[in-house]
Amino acid sequence: MARTMVLEKFNEPLVEREYPETELAAGELRVRLAASGICGSDIHMAAGHDPRTPLPIILGHEAVGYVDEVGGEKLDLLGRRVEPGRLIAWDRGVTCSKCAFCTIKRQPYLCSSRKVYGINVSCKEPPHLVGGYSEKMHLYAGTNVLMIEPGVDPVSLVAAGCSGATAVHAVEEAALMPGGVAVVQGAGPLGLFAAALLRERGAAEVIVTDLKPGRLQSAPRFGATRVLDIGATDQKARAEAVLEVSSGFGADAVIDCTGHPAAIKEGMSYCRRGGRYLPVGIAVPVGETSVSFYEDVSVRNLTVQGVWVSDTSHFYQAVKLVTGGRYPFEELVSHRFKLSEANQAQKAAVSADAVKVVLVPEEAA
Amino acid sequence: MARTMVLEKFNEPLVEREYPETELAAGELRVRLAASGICGSDIHMAAGHDPRTPLPIILGHEAVGYVDEVGGEKLDLLGRRVEPGRLIAWDRGVTCSKCAFCTIKRQPYLCSSRKVYGINVSCKEPPHLVGGYSEKMHLYAGTNVLMIEPGVDPVSLVAAGCSGATAVHAVEEAALMPGGVAVVQGAGPLGLFAAALLRERGAAEVIVTDLKPGRLQSAPRFGATRVLDIGATDQKARAEAVLEVSSGFGADAVIDCTGHPAAIKEGMSYCRRGGRYLPVGIAVPVGETSVSFYEDVSVRNLTVQGVWVSDTSHFYQAVKLVTGGRYPFEELVSHRFKLSEANQAQKAAVSADAVKVVLVPEEAA
Amino acid sequence: MARTMVLEKFNEPLVEREYPETELAAGELRVRLAASGICGSDIHMAAGHDPRTPLPIILGHEAVGYVDEVGGEKLDLLGRRVEPGRLIAWDRGVTCSKCAFCTIKRQPYLCSSRKVYGINVSCKEPPHLVGGYSEKMHLYAGTNVLMIEPGVDPVSLVAAGCSGATAVHAVEEAALMPGGVAVVQGAGPLGLFAAALLRERGAAEVIVTDLKPGRLQSAPRFGATRVLDIGATDQKARAEAVLEVSSGFGADAVIDCTGHPAAIKEGMSYCRRGGRYLPVGIAVPVGETSVSFYEDVSVRNLTVQGVWVSDTSHFYQAVKLVTGGRYPFEELVSHRFKLSEANQAQKAAVSADAVKVVLVPEEAA
Amino acid sequence: MARTMVLEKFNEPLVEREYPETELAAGELRVRLAASGICGSDIHMAAGHDPRTPLPIILGHEAVGYVDEVGGEKLDLLGRRVEPGRLIAWDRGVTCSKCAFCTIKRQPYLCSSRKVYGINVSCKEPPHLVGGYSEKMHLYAGTNVLMIEPGVDPVSLVAAGCSGATAVHAVEEAALMPGGVAVVQGAGPLGLFAAALLRERGAAEVIVTDLKPGRLQSAPRFGATRVLDIGATDQKARAEAVLEVSSGFGADAVIDCTGHPAAIKEGMSYCRRGGRYLPVGIAVPVGETSVSFYEDVSVRNLTVQGVWVSDTSHFYQAVKLVTGGRYPFEELVSHRFKLSEANQAQKAAVSADAVKVVLVPEEAA
Repeated sequence: MARTMVLEKFNEPLVEREYPETELAAGELRVRLAASGICGSDIHMAAGHDPRTPLPIILGHEAVGYVDEVGGEKLDLLGRRVEPGRLIAWDRGVTCSKCAFCTIKRQPYLCSSRKVYGINVSCKEPPHLVGGYSEKMHLYAGTNVLMIEPGVDPVSLVAAGCSGATAVHAVEEAALMPGGVAVVQGAGPLGLFAAALLRERGAAEVIVTDLKPGRLQSAPRFGATRVLDIGATDQKARAEAVLEVSSGFGADAVIDCTGHPAAIKEGMSYCRRGGRYLPVGIAVPVGETSVSFYEDVSVRNLTVQGVWVSDTSHFYQAVKLVTGGRYPFEELVSHRFKLSEANQAQKAAVSADAVKVVLVPEEAA
Repeated sequence: MARTMVLEKFNEPLVEREYPETELAAGELRVRLAASGICGSDIHMAAGHDPRTPLPIILGHEAVGYVDEVGGEKLDLLGRRVEPGRLIAWDRGVTCSKCAFCTIKRQPYLCSSRKVYGINVSCKEPPHLVGGYSEKMHLYAGTNVLMIEPGVDPVSLVAAGCSGATAVHAVEEAALMPGGVAVVQGAGPLGLFAAALLRERGAAEVIVTDLKPGRLQSAPRFGATRVLDIGATDQKARAEAVLEVSSGFGADAVIDCTGHPAAIKEGMSYCRRGGRYLPVGIAVPVGETSVSFYEDVSVRNLTVQGVWVSDTSHFYQAVKLVTGGRYPFEELVSHRFKLSEANQAQKAAVSADAVKVVLVPEEAA
Repeated sequence: MARTMVLEKFNEPLVEREYPETELAAGELRVRLAASGICGSDIHMAAGHDPRTPLPIILGHEAVGYVDEVGGEKLDLLGRRVEPGRLIAWDRGVTCSKCAFCTIKRQPYLCSSRKVYGINVSCKEPPHLVGGYSEKMHLYAGTNVLMIEPGVDPVSLVAAGCSGATAVHAVEEAALMPGGVAVVQGAGPLGLFAAALLRERGAAEVIVTDLKPGRLQSAPRFGATRVLDIGATDQKARAEAVLEVSSGFGADAVIDCTGHPAAIKEGMSYCRRGGRYLPVGIAVPVGETSVSFYEDVSVRNLTVQGVWVSDTSHFYQAVKLVTGGRYPFEELVSHRFKLSEANQAQKAAVSADAVKVVLVPEEAA
Repeated sequence: MARTMVLEKFNEPLVEREYPETELAAGELRVRLAASGICGSDIHMAAGHDPRTPLPIILGHEAVGYVDEVGGEKLDLLGRRVEPGRLIAWDRGVTCSKCAFCTIKRQPYLCSSRKVYGINVSCKEPPHLVGGYSEKMHLYAGTNVLMIEPGVDPVSLVAAGCSGATAVHAVEEAALMPGGVAVVQGAGPLGLFAAALLRERGAAEVIVTDLKPGRLQSAPRFGATRVLDIGATDQKARAEAVLEVSSGFGADAVIDCTGHPAAIKEGMSYCRRGGRYLPVGIAVPVGETSVSFYEDVSVRNLTVQGVWVSDTSHFYQAVKLVTGGRYPFEELVSHRFKLSEANQAQKAAVSADAVKVVLVPEEAA
């Protein structure tokens, strides 16, 4: 039996439940979780804002853990046999590899039947343990996993699975030329990953904006060459800062990691002619934004690129970024809670000083 | 002296003027025009809607002609010496090849100091003859020209220089995979070029929409596999038609060639998840369009790609498409006028049955 | 029980054997074959030249057929439920979707554990029926299948599964710009597919070379704009022909579909500076070829691109090309034999007048 | 009058000559050189090995300097007016922006009439001062220049103009995915730039090989994560090292910066299936190399990418890398000589301990 925290009704506290560990078929894994993140979307889901949410559900889609049991033989992404006891990370999305998106169109992140742990699979039926707010997780045979080298702190990896992978997707689409100028709106986990990845792609300048002092302070350690405090500057000043570092051209790419509708028009205005705007942080409906297609898009030859979730290549690149050790991803973790404190953890996740909140085993909390 | 028709005041008829032929420096050309198109933007410019318009101006940015005189030696795009008497076409935009857009960013169509015949150069100062509503044109040394093989009808080439080149730019950005499904909104010269080019890129299905019967009839000869009459269908029926030919996915790419604001939201809705929407026809301000970034862009991983003018590679590809002879581009020309009838020609260009209106020399009219 | 023709010993005739039809697990299919191709590699395999060949084996990796039975529910690539009685085609390669090539590197054609019907799976163990020289075939659950619209001639589809898909892969890597010039060496099924695909990508000129009169005659119906008879021209004349159609530059892309070592140096020499050479036809060792890296590769900024097999997107595009009906793929089939005549069919496949040899059911032979 | 060192006869010492400073036309510049590099190709040219070399010639194609005089108005790549006294760098190649390579094919580095200072222009005719072994240089109006911010050490920029720009070209073509594994053969200026650029593109591992202790010691400061001493390891050990850091796959990209024929086959063998081999360092004929196309190229789906010189975007990116300050490019300069010591400088450039040898003004030497 494994302990879990279950969302049974929207807008009510998670309740502790136990589920049996099922027998493993070939390629399935059971994992003892080492760290499990609270993501902003968990909060939206608990409030019933996400129509994909089946009840009851064990929330939690970003987690890493130690292999508890292996069904038959399982190879990781690099072809290595997965061994019990090893720390592993995995792509939170399980895709079918047979639909048009997985094959013909080469956009597996849009898989017609993508299953995501903690998001669109209920714990009602076996194998039950398919979310991260849990002692253990069951991984489907279709899950793509990666064994992690010894010495990596599990909590540093939590955000790689969701924010990190999505940021890789966005930065890949940003197609920044080395030596280029980028803006990242928002310095939460998504934004800090994006900043670091832009830096890894050779950006000469990465401007990061946010409101929260803690996040603004972290940004330079994640590749930001300049930070703009939204509370202490007006839009005109920010626009001037972008022009200043870009020789008057505007940014080659702007990545929105806030999800705030107000950021959209401002972010588009930062782009240079021929630049790219990537709204990545929009995880829930934000209403209508008015766009002047002639002035904003056509004359400026602008690319607006929606970015939805991620694929296994993005996931892998995100993990490599963390394990590469060039950025202090362990610092992203602002709060640690025990599994049984998942309700407090969710509250902490929306507090002013939160960056990343994680659930860890009792002995590590 | 060469005769021209000059726009001296906005909203007044063009007036006939003569200008002297200036002496040619090395690399400059003088051309006796064989055909010169009336473009929709000419009408906007004559009405003073385009802030780039310097008065007095000889309108006309799409033209082809016979080489009259060569200043020194001039090579064409394929390295051949340009000879008097030869029919030539040229890129209407003259770029600097030295700014960041021409060099670093590899987007020469966005050149910081792009000069366009008939659009942003006045006829006030020598060399005067820098627009297409004229007997002759002066081509700057920086102009990229292409000698045309004997046997090609000059009027078939007119639209290649502007609509054709812009359509190539759009279709290149559409990045359609062979076997894909595309929609082209609007079957004017821009839309018909786009349809043919999509077909040339291996599209399995090209749906073309328009209101005008003549255009709808032409579309199948320019690659359309299905035409939708905007007047005889409602949006629901059109959406169903797109789903039908795309196995329920929606179009891989939708190219708007109408410039009508109403087309934007409809066109975006035709795209499949992970598809591309390219508003190309928007040549003048169209006001604000409301976009639901979550539903329209983010969740759908949609690309919205503004497309502004074109570069010399686009121009060349457009000319090759015409001279390749697979599509009846001479059919695009619905009306021919003499130079002195340029005012009537402009009126005809906005008539219901116009596709392409061209000015031709007296003997050919 | 299903009848098959089995290779039990290298260099000995195939022998007729019967195998039982096994029970189908979820996602598996049994197919009654409508047409099954003899590929050049089959001949190499029968002679023991391909180290991947496990004995006993039912050769045959390109086939189409009617669904006989479905294990549980099976969706095709477009998400449609596969129904008994429907004609289907399938990707001959079954990939794992979990290894680094399938996921991280996005090169699923290089999958570490790719299984290919008729090539690297023996018929010794159940499900036995895993090759195309057979009445029926068993398709693994991981097989990507596509239902074919009624009215398509099955034999026209045979070559799409191997030559067609590989040609799509090659032409994709050739990255030809519309209006460009290409050369295809060899006008067998691979070469004719390549020619048609280049034409579909907007090639202005496609030169096709071969020795066999029948193939040279077919080439223009598959997109060739010019054919060069290797027997009736010398290399100098061929090089001049390439220069002539390319304004003296040389070809943008040259695709070798002969597999003859002599073709390599000649083909590389046809490329323009900055062009691409793609040796695609090399299916067995051809010995050493000497390359002058300075003159042949570096100074010329040449790309030499090896192309190995294909992925499901390539397969799909090849089938769409055939069903699109623009090229007479049924003409590729020069010989038809009954299954029991597989040994004669293999002999015919190496005869001078063969293009494509297929096995068809008794009633269709 | 400006002092220069001129190559008048192959295999004879350079001789000191003075040339007059000519009057500047619009867009032309005269520059007082601050630092001028001795490149390996200079040595080849002085020995008469490069057929492009016109005599007499002022060698030297990588240089930076202070603006002495401006003909009319000249804008730099970022649109800023070039002012006397400012330190500038420039693209050593002057392209026509009108030929098929500059326009249609978008490969301006292959420009049909590319002029390169110090390489294919003689000093015989005015403006004479078109090579870097000189007090001053004349820059043609077509030259693309970039003003350098104050505080940058001129000698640190010398190699950016040739080795740096070429390395950017190569690394761009290497198309390494972030998190990937690369090998750079040779740790001279070209190799060290390549290593740093690969690191800037997010390489997880960059293995650098060389023979010279000084170069091997420098490599880690230029992004190398591992260095292999060719003198202290055999090929088997090196191959194992590549496999070790690449989880057994082999390198995603291998860039040869040695130009030694022996490196080619070894380098190709380091590539993983589906990887890329880029021979960049081959600047003079190296004879024939035998390639087994089946085993080396086809089965492995290998890309062999020749890389010839560079364009202005490459040049700009190289300069940005240097001025970004993340790598100690000033350390590349192992020797400094006065202009009058150019013959000694050339000797030093081929010595065992040389990395980069530069000529500097008398007061800086």
